[in-house]
Amino acid sequence: MNRIRLLLGALSIPLAILPISAHADDGYALWLRTAASSVGQINIKRLGDTPTLRLAESELRRDISAVTPPIVIATTSAPGLQPLHLAAEDLGDEGYLIRNVTLDGQRVLLIAGNSDRGVLYGAFALIRHLAAGGKADALSLRSSPKVKLRVLNHWDNLDGSVERGYAGQSLWDWWTLPDFRDPRYTDYARANASIGINGTVLNNVNAKADSLTPAYIAKAAALAEVFRPWGIRVYLSVRFSAPIELGGLKTADPRDPAVAAWWKAKADEIYRAIPDFGGFLVKANSEGQPGPRDYGATHADGANMLAAAVRDHGGIVMWRAFVYAETDPEDRAKQAYTGFKPLDGKFADNVLVQVKNGAIDFQPREPFHPLFGAMPRTPLMIEFQITKEYLGFATHLAYLGPLFTETLDARTGQKSGETVADVVDGQAEHHKLSGMAGVANIGRDRDWSGSTFNQANWYAFGRLAWDPDLSAEAIARAWVAQTFGTDPQIVDTITAMMMGSREAVVDYTGAFGLAHLMATGHHYGPGPWVSELARPEWNPVYYHRADAAGIGFDRTVSGSNAVGQYAGPVAKAFAKPETTPESMLLWFHHVSWDRRMADGQTLWTNLVARYDRGVAYVEQMQRQWDSLRDRIDAERWQKTATYLAVQEREARWWRDASLAYWMSVNHRPLPSGVRPPEHDLAWYKAQQFPYAPGQAH
Amino acid sequence: MNRIRLLLGALSIPLAILPISAHADDGYALWLRTAASSVGQINIKRLGDTPTLRLAESELRRDISAVTPPIVIATTSAPGLQPLHLAAEDLGDEGYLIRNVTLDGQRVLLIAGNSDRGVLYGAFALIRHLAAGGKADALSLRSSPKVKLRVLNHWDNLDGSVERGYAGQSLWDWWTLPDFRDPRYTDYARANASIGINGTVLNNVNAKADSLTPAYIAKAAALAEVFRPWGIRVYLSVRFSAPIELGGLKTADPRDPAVAAWWKAKADEIYRAIPDFGGFLVKANSEGQPGPRDYGATHADGANMLAAAVRDHGGIVMWRAFVYAETDPEDRAKQAYTGFKPLDGKFADNVLVQVKNGAIDFQPREPFHPLFGAMPRTPLMIEFQITKEYLGFATHLAYLGPLFTETLDARTGQKSGETVADVVDGQAEHHKLSGMAGVANIGRDRDWSGSTFNQANWYAFGRLAWDPDLSAEAIARAWVAQTFGTDPQIVDTITAMMMGSREAVVDYTGAFGLAHLMATGHHYGPGPWVSELARPEWNPVYYHRADAAGIGFDRTVSGSNAVGQYAGPVAKAFAKPETTPESMLLWFHHVSWDRRMADGQTLWTNLVARYDRGVAYVEQMQRQWDSLRDRIDAERWQKTATYLAVQEREARWWRDASLAYWMSVNHRPLPSGVRPPEHDLAWYKAQQFPYAPGQAH
Repeated sequence: MNRIRLLLGALSIPLAILPISAHADDGYALWLRTAASSVGQINIKRLGDTPTLRLAESELRRDISAVTPPIVIATTSAPGLQPLHLAAEDLGDEGYLIRNVTLDGQRVLLIAGNSDRGVLYGAFALIRHLAAGGKADALSLRSSPKVKLRVLNHWDNLDGSVERGYAGQSLWDWWTLPDFRDPRYTDYARANASIGINGTVLNNVNAKADSLTPAYIAKAAALAEVFRPWGIRVYLSVRFSAPIELGGLKTADPRDPAVAAWWKAKADEIYRAIPDFGGFLVKANSEGQPGPRDYGATHADGANMLAAAVRDHGGIVMWRAFVYAETDPEDRAKQAYTGFKPLDGKFADNVLVQVKNGAIDFQPREPFHPLFGAMPRTPLMIEFQITKEYLGFATHLAYLGPLFTETLDARTGQKSGETVADVVDGQAEHHKLSGMAGVANIGRDRDWSGSTFNQANWYAFGRLAWDPDLSAEAIARAWVAQTFGTDPQIVDTITAMMMGSREAVVDYTGAFGLAHLMATGHHYGPGPWVSELARPEWNPVYYHRADAAGIGFDRTVSGSNAVGQYAGPVAKAFAKPETTPESMLLWFHHVSWDRRMADGQTLWTNLVARYDRGVAYVEQMQRQWDSLRDRIDAERWQKTATYLAVQEREARWWRDASLAYWMSVNHRPLPSGVRPPEHDLAWYKAQQFPYAPGQAH
Repeated sequence: MNRIRLLLGALSIPLAILPISAHADDGYALWLRTAASSVGQINIKRLGDTPTLRLAESELRRDISAVTPPIVIATTSAPGLQPLHLAAEDLGDEGYLIRNVTLDGQRVLLIAGNSDRGVLYGAFALIRHLAAGGKADALSLRSSPKVKLRVLNHWDNLDGSVERGYAGQSLWDWWTLPDFRDPRYTDYARANASIGINGTVLNNVNAKADSLTPAYIAKAAALAEVFRPWGIRVYLSVRFSAPIELGGLKTADPRDPAVAAWWKAKADEIYRAIPDFGGFLVKANSEGQPGPRDYGATHADGANMLAAAVRDHGGIVMWRAFVYAETDPEDRAKQAYTGFKPLDGKFADNVLVQVKNGAIDFQPREPFHPLFGAMPRTPLMIEFQITKEYLGFATHLAYLGPLFTETLDARTGQKSGETVADVVDGQAEHHKLSGMAGVANIGRDRDWSGSTFNQANWYAFGRLAWDPDLSAEAIARAWVAQTFGTDPQIVDTITAMMMGSREAVVDYTGAFGLAHLMATGHHYGPGPWVSELARPEWNPVYYHRADAAGIGFDRTVSGSNAVGQYAGPVAKAFAKPETTPESMLLWFHHVSWDRRMADGQTLWTNLVARYDRGVAYVEQMQRQWDSLRDRIDAERWQKTATYLAVQEREARWWRDASLAYWMSVNHRPLPSGVRPPEHDLAWYKAQQFPYAPGQAH
């Protein structure tokens, strides 16, 4: 860096002194970097003048070094564009086109959209295209988002902690808001806009009523003002009992007119402060949260009452289907479907039901949630978890693109060829509303997401929310190019590392459809032996049901019949072990340890091999990363190298602890040549991590 | 920034892409910046090769642009220096000299010390000298620290929260330690070394036993390794009951041989991991912490048992005198003296007793603690609070230099002319050990301390720990020059703002020796009316004792006789209102609201005027800061401007709430022309801040 500083010193800087940094690259810039190729004055003409158009221009000036021909940015209604007959109706509100055109006799690259937001997305698309090594000549891009609401869910608490957050404190400094607008808020909005995210829920779904007080509305309004020109709307999670806690009412019954009036007045108050407020996200009657069921009312009653409060303002309600009752003995995997399927058609038209990708809780692998396709009269928003609660926190490298696309690409079995993506993007039933939510992995850590590779998951979520049909690999390649440069060895090597990384986590934490095997509370590390927690479905043994004879949760007709919640060919396939994909086998079936698998070996032999394969994959990633040492800046290289070493150690820990436990249950020897666990089972059971991050206070 | 980036683009950078930053200056560089004057290759010769000497060289290369003559850095024992007859014995272990000498026939600027640490401190002294506009020609500096242990106390919890921290999460990412060594750890050590700090207590005095487990010892060892070449030792706060919690013993009685053996083994274990481990800090039998008094043993018994455990390794014990009993009805201001004075002479010679600057708790103004000078046979370490628990958290501008020096310069009354500084630096009694502790204001916020101006308090603490005789103003001027540049208008204006800023906080929170008037728990904002807390001394009314007739705590013989704990002329002065400095009047005396003050007006009139003066000072700081808008980089300017607006609003709040309360007690009208409080008292009482930062979980 010394040479840079020396040259800087020679410039006529208006400041007397310059800060210096010991850091090569601390990851703050995310995937938005400057091409260091030939640098010249970029020729940009902007038709029109709105804050968002100005941002589009400044982004292009900032991120593009040189481009021919000159660039023109404009909304399609700009005077002068009519002769081009752009036929841009299908771009909708947010789409863009990028095209070489002749304007006033000059050959230019036009970026246009029906709104200034569309132009901004187009600017970022061009930046992405060029950063990935693409050319501007003869370029023609045209894209509009398939999903309307592309929303981050921040599980951020008002005290600055982040539930399931592994990237430091909440990005929102509630204490200094609304006065101080940290420049990071702008950088956050910019990063989101660059990948098409257009909404953010600021606070935890386990919400405090205080977030609806005037003081906190003012704080949210300050953030909304920063985000607005970037096309990002603010939403709030609300606590259903707020009318009692803040309003002094005796009930929060959604059928009580006083309750509805309180929410209406509250919504009016919010919209006075935030005219483009997005709406409410609600976790009700789940894991201790209050809700309409407390009063014998339905989830639809609750959602519709809130929807009425925001309707006149153009707001919406996202109502979570992640509901399982404290007392219901039904298979937890079935409860959301059981509770919500009968409500199809009962929700107001500004309500979306937000459904997790799988029926349990963001496990490394889950079959798609049976509600997708089963509620045709209701827009279903899919909820992914970007933060890696169950996939290694910040330190494990696990690219979630394949997890996201595996669910999106799954056939629902409801209509011929219908995929989860078709349901989510609203195509299947021509819904006006559609949405994708991602539980954010963003905090105040300098690199935003706790590790460089976690940034890829934020990026992948945004890109897939825009277009659920993108491939995880194409997204990975683009992210690597934007993040580390276009050197083919870098792009090929890192993309290869990423693409198998999630499967490696599945392998070393428990393959073949095993799930929910983690330790209690913090969810860090293995705990397949845990059996003493108060509620049955809190215990890993509830999920794996291993005994001397076999392992797996029988969800067929002979068991919980969760399979019956799936439709047509899907239900049929899941009904028998023989037709269930091996990757889901133990999710749906209890089978013998000695069952013959596709490769002719026993399940036990296969399971052991998967643990070893998972560990080996991490070792391979270490070698791959080592090979890039001279091609990556030192700081980011070192941090990832360190984290890969942690992951390698912890993959072994998962493997060894799991094997020690399974052997204590099935009394089977390890296949010959397999390394035994390093410690005995008691040692693994004794590990305690009272200060693991991400726990709510 | 655009021009800089364009030029950067033209350099041959080894990386394909460069990160960019939207930030002019985010404050990360603290006071360590590069002079942008004429830049050339600096000529440095290093005699000797240790990690610390290499750091001294790299710091000079990094921070100094050009200097004549060439620089030579060396320890005094380096071959070749003997002919100079440096007479450096009095520099001790850590001192340095900087002198123009002729070496091998060449005129050079020599930086020398008896140890490489001394050389490093010398390098930073030269950097400071030049950054403040000083010349290298004919330079002759010579300095050694007057205080041996210059230590930060981090009240950082293992879960990442920081008690009384207002700068984000703990800098220590315990979760990724010992694997990941964040580059910030190095930058932290560097910043500390640059101001002479040589020790850091990593964890909260309200300690968890877990910090002594092997896992956490390994984490502390990783930090110690990073800090070592910077001359910084690691210390740990310990929980006195750890032998029970970790060791399975039935008691933590310090007289029990098994307890002593447990601690000895634990110390041995720590020293195996951290050979230069500094020792233990202990908060015992205070605010719910366990301690030797639980077993009828004395604080000396406890301290000496721990001291024996670390003695052979060269370790020390810092034992806090901040003790007040749950049940003791004695004036809280007296209890530490009452408990510790009789123990003078009973502590082992590797124990220091750590005494807060005042007898209550880091209030905006307190008289010096009566223990200073009263325990001549015991090294007393002074404890300041750098973090502004009671002076406005991160948002208020309050330079603590004058608070620190006011205490250090105070005459103890014990020996002729003896000051608190003389006691602290060990001069008074020729103690081998001496120390100064500062409760750190450092967190993971990008600017380290929550605001630019809070950085000055960290800086001032370090400089005063090295030399308690420095003036607060000289330190402020040096800090401003290093932080904002040498432009005289900048230096003069900001120094002036800083120098009166702490008195302004005294004025708007409660002048004339009032104290402990803040709200409960978080200690944010006014709460002089609070009277219902369980323990008397938790309530502000305990401290101000205001009634219709008068106000103030009678600590004379007619009252608690805390005055009797002071010596000689000091006790005599404090014994009567007439001879007590007005700034301390209500700390020691209960007097009439109508008492005539020095200016001939009543106390009530004076008190009201002080509230107004405090508010006016903040308004003046706003105008002063506004005048520098074009001279300060935009980001740091804006953040401070925003915070000054917060401070102005909150100064009014303190004033108005306090006046509303005093008027409810004394039923006196405001002097004519004085603005009445904006709200009624009930409004102020109703303010709630459940998510204020800095509260322990």
